Formats: sequence, structure tokens, C-alpha cells
Amino acid sequence: MIDLQRDGDVYVLRFDAGENRFSPDFLGAVEGALDSVAKNDGPGALVTVGTGKFYSNGLDLDWLGANQDRFGEYLGRVHGLYARLLELPMPTVAALNGHAFAGGGMLALAHDFAVMRTDRGYFCLPEVDLGMSFTPGMNALIAGRLPKATAHEAMLTGRRYAAEQAREAGIVQRTAAEGDVLPAAVEQAAAMAGRNGAAVAKIRTDLYRPVLDALHGPALP
Amino acid sequence: MIDLQRDGDVYVLRFDAGENRFSPDFLGAVEGALDSVAKNDGPGALVTVGTGKFYSNGLDLDWLGANQDRFGEYLGRVHGLYARLLELPMPTVAALNGHAFAGGGMLALAHDFAVMRTDRGYFCLPEVDLGMSFTPGMNALIAGRLPKATAHEAMLTGRRYAAEQAREAGIVQRTAAEGDVLPAAVEQAAAMAGRNGAAVAKIRTDLYRPVLDALHGPALP
Amino acid sequence: MIDLQRDGDVYVLRFDAGENRFSPDFLGAVEGALDSVAKNDGPGALVTVGTGKFYSNGLDLDWLGANQDRFGEYLGRVHGLYARLLELPMPTVAALNGHAFAGGGMLALAHDFAVMRTDRGYFCLPEVDLGMSFTPGMNALIAGRLPKATAHEAMLTGRRYAAEQAREAGIVQRTAAEGDVLPAAVEQAAAMAGRNGAAVAKIRTDLYRPVLDALHGPALP
Repeated sequence: MIDLQRDGDVYVLRFDAGENRFSPDFLGAVEGALDSVAKNDGPGALVTVGTGKFYSNGLDLDWLGANQDRFGEYLGRVHGLYARLLELPMPTVAALNGHAFAGGGMLALAHDFAVMRTDRGYFCLPEVDLGMSFTPGMNALIAGRLPKATAHEAMLTGRRYAAEQAREAGIVQRTAAEGDVLPAAVEQAAAMAGRNGAAVAKIRTDLYRPVLDALHGPALP
Repeated sequence: MIDLQRDGDVYVLRFDAGENRFSPDFLGAVEGALDSVAKNDGPGALVTVGTGKFYSNGLDLDWLGANQDRFGEYLGRVHGLYARLLELPMPTVAALNGHAFAGGGMLALAHDFAVMRTDRGYFCLPEVDLGMSFTPGMNALIAGRLPKATAHEAMLTGRRYAAEQAREAGIVQRTAAEGDVLPAAVEQAAAMAGRNGAAVAKIRTDLYRPVLDALHGPALP
Repeated sequence: MIDLQRDGDVYVLRFDAGENRFSPDFLGAVEGALDSVAKNDGPGALVTVGTGKFYSNGLDLDWLGANQDRFGEYLGRVHGLYARLLELPMPTVAALNGHAFAGGGMLALAHDFAVMRTDRGYFCLPEVDLGMSFTPGMNALIAGRLPKATAHEAMLTGRRYAAEQAREAGIVQRTAAEGDVLPAAVEQAAAMAGRNGAAVAKIRTDLYRPVLDALHGPALP
């Protein structure tokens, strides 16, 4: 379901569950991996990557349909995952090998930087087209991490951004051909791995305090 | 004073009162039109446009000069107009056929997107040159909708932005020749008209909650 | 240590103390100069500039090392300096003749605009590389004045921005050759000197109210 390897100073966390939707098992596996990574001492950085044509498609709507009474609890756990990344005491880079949709796109935004594959794959927040809206935590995460005009367009139109469009809109910082996405992300992460982890976490959590307050607050309004 | 037509799924609200300053009668007419538009069921989107060389020059200073005791009440009504647009359950596009000054520029910012005429007309917040400042609601609207550097420059220098400058500064998203401004805005609105109106309103009001709180709060500090 | 001259309507405040670190004496001299400038009546604008290869390197770490018991008081005074600039009743321009590091970089951000020297000198927030973080006031100032992506990169990676990089990142608005930095800043300031000072201060303090609240709040969490 996931795979955690270390490449020099860089932890590479691979999501390997098809569309990488956030099933409870998937969340548990990722939480466990982040627990392990957070114990790192000395230089370190994290790269996450998916498999095939998906980075992550976000919420597990099948599971949710069968467990509607656990909606709030489930959303709280997803919020917790985003918060864990913002609080991680090391630099983080998302290697977007493929689609980053909805909650999966927000997962990418919870990283410090993102590299996106050029030949296929979209970043998309399709909620508006599904007649859905965003939780307070998700709203705060998107608004806190994207330029205002991009947050507005992405949230209100559900636009699909290909790699170069995503870079121009400030959603990702770099683009790369399919085979170069992970190496580029690892290279960027390695260059930052020497940073003081405690300082990284303190600076990042101070900068995103309102986002973290929303993510740790009530999952539903 | 105003004219409301429907072009396919798109409501076209034309301001037709010279400089389109916000006299009480003008505000009443626009409020009535938005009441009508808000009752839309099914696909829908709104375009607003002015006439001749003016989109809108904002506050009606002549009326205000004669009714200074009603300043707070009047500002509250202007704030309410901006809030109504942010709360409207459909996508909105401003077709800037001409000058959008002061409160008229802010009216443009209360729309989802704006198209601006290239050959003449400016976006300008001239308050600083008039020795005036911004109400809490106006300050929140401008700061909430413009890139930080643009809000700073526009508010503190009173710069007049021609169309291409306004696009580069993130004030408008598209520019067009005089005869193409309204068609371009209608085309963009039509492309978004199928969005779920309730979702649009919920996402937008969540995203701009602090702006709406300021607009609905005391009109004067 | 400092020198205050008037060039037409423009006050030119030169920092002339080597690295221009914020020793108590330096702070006292700058505070006195700003007191004098703030009494201006009629047209006016302020330019600050350093000497040689330094604009300012920020906190006086030598003095702090010998006066650790006065850390909070000292930081409060530095915060006060930033606040004074944001509150100054006239337009302000920083002429970055050289390095603007850490607290010195933040000093530049407290001005309305900045012009940066092209051939040498960096803007840099090196705190993360020193294992340090930012005070609540400094965090608010940086986040309030820089585009989100730039604040994130500058604070979390300690990147050194040369002039053109700083312009692209939205840290400065203009760049100039060494001999043109001060003239360009004075020219820009002079063009804005006719603005109503009270309106400038009111608009600016309203726009940056959350930043000022943080700067005037507790210096340490």
C-alpha cells in the first residue's frame, strides 16, 4: 500500500494503492510512515510520490458512502494528515507523478514544494463540479498555500491544471518529464536536508498557524 | 438607470446612468436586479457592464455632500452591494467597458473575474489623492481580492491602471478591444453557468468569510 | 552612525555604521531621525540607504550575547522600529545599496517600496540556517508584505536573492546599478511626496493592522 525507503538523507514515501485514495488503511499506513520519519535525527527531508498515473485522488468516497456516520471523524483524520506534513521537522517535497485531485491535490499543497510531471496528470479541485464545498480546514489550507487568484480560480471553477499551467499559477514550483519527477524532487529535498529540523518545524508552524488551527479545529462547521 | 437581460444562461446587468455613481436610486435598482437574479434556478451566471466610457465611478459624492448625516447608513448599503455579489449563487464576471474608479473599482473586485477594455479606461483607487482612506469593509475587500503588492500600490499610490497593466497586476484576468469586452465576459460566464449555484456560493463565502464579516460589520470604525 | 539630509521634499536617512546592525545606539539614532521626519508638514517622503556593501545585517548579535537578559526588551524595540515605518505619515522607499540580511531584510520590507543594487548584495532571511525562528512580529511582517510563495521560500530555505531574483520574487520593485540605487529611490519618493501624509498613514495602518498588532504585541511568544 505504501513503501518507505531512504535515499541518502532523503526519505522517499511511495503511495502504491492505485488511485491512492485515503482509505482508513491507507491513512494508517501513511501515519505510521510519518511517525517513523518524524523520529529522524540529523539531516533529513521527505519526498512523497505515487505510482503510475496517480499521485492521489483524495477522499475514499466508496468507504465514506458505506460509513456516513463516521464522516466527521474521517475528515478529522484527513485534516490530521495535512497538519502532520506542515508540522514535520524537515523539508518536504511532493513528486507529482500523476493526478492530484481534490484531497490528493490538497495533500500536495501540504508539502513545502512540488514537482509535477509534464506529459500527463492534472492538479484539480473538482469539488464545485460535484456540488460539494470545502471543510474549514481544507479551505484554510488551500487559501493559505496558493496565490489568491489561483485559490479563487481552482476552488470556484474546478479548472484542471496541467504541469506548466500549475507552475504558472503557483501550485507547483517545478515541472519535469515523467522519469525525472522523482529524481528532481529527491535532488531538491537532498539540497535542503541539512536544515535544522526543529527550526524548519517552528518557522513553518508559525507561518501557517491559522491553517493549523483550522486543521486541528472541528472537521465540520 | 439599469437594464437586466438574459442571454442564454447569462444574466447581463447593464448600468446605464452616466458615471454609474451609487446614488440611492441606482443602488435600489441594482439591488432589485440582484434579487431577481438570485432567484435563478438551474444554470446561470451574471455579467455586469456599464455604458460608454464608464463602468462605475463609485460613491455619489454629490448626494453624500447633501446627506452627510446618512454617511454610515449609505456606506452600509454600498458594503451590502459588494457582499451580495460575493454571496450570489452563480459565477460573476465584470465587463469593464470603461473607468472603474474608487467604489466602482471595488465593485469590479467583488466579481469572480473581470475583462477590461484595452483602448481606454482605468482601474483606479484615488482615495489617497483625495485625502481619504478606506472603510473596514472596503479595506478587507481590496486586500482579500488583490495580490498583496497590487493592493499596496493601488491603495497607497492611487495609480491608474490601463487594461494591460491591470492584467499584469492581477486586477483583471482578461483584456479585450472595446467591442469585445462584453462578448468575452458573456462567453466566460456562459462557460461557468453550469456550475452548481449553491456550491459556488458556499465555496465563495467560505473563502471570503473575513471579507464578508467586515462588509457586514460596522460601516465606519 | 546615521545621517539625515533633505533633498527637495525627500528625507534621505543614511545608515553609516558598517554592517548597520541594530545596536542600542543605532536604534536610538534612527528613532530620533524618524521622530524628526514624522514632524514634517506638507509634501514629504523618506528614503533610507546604507553605506558601502551593507544596507543592514539586522540584530546586533554581539550586544545580545552580552545582554541576554534584555532579549525581550531589545526585540520589542526592533519591532517598534518596523512599526514606526509602517505608521510613518509619508511614502517610504528603501534604497538597498548592499546586503539586507535577517532583521535588516525585514527593515527593507517595512518600507512601501524598495530599489536593489544589481551588481552585488543579497536579500536573505538566514534564520533557518542559524537554527533560529521568527518572532510573532517578524513572522507577521514578512508574511504580510511578501507573496505567499516568496515568504515560504525565503523563511524556510534561507535563499539568498540577488537583485533580479528579488524583483521577480516580489521582494523589491526595482533594480539599479550601484550608482543609480539612491537616485532611483529618491526619484520614486519625490514622485509620491505630494500625497496626503495623514491619508497615507491611515490607509497603510489599516491595511497592515494585523502586522502592527503583532509588532506592538508581546515581543516573544
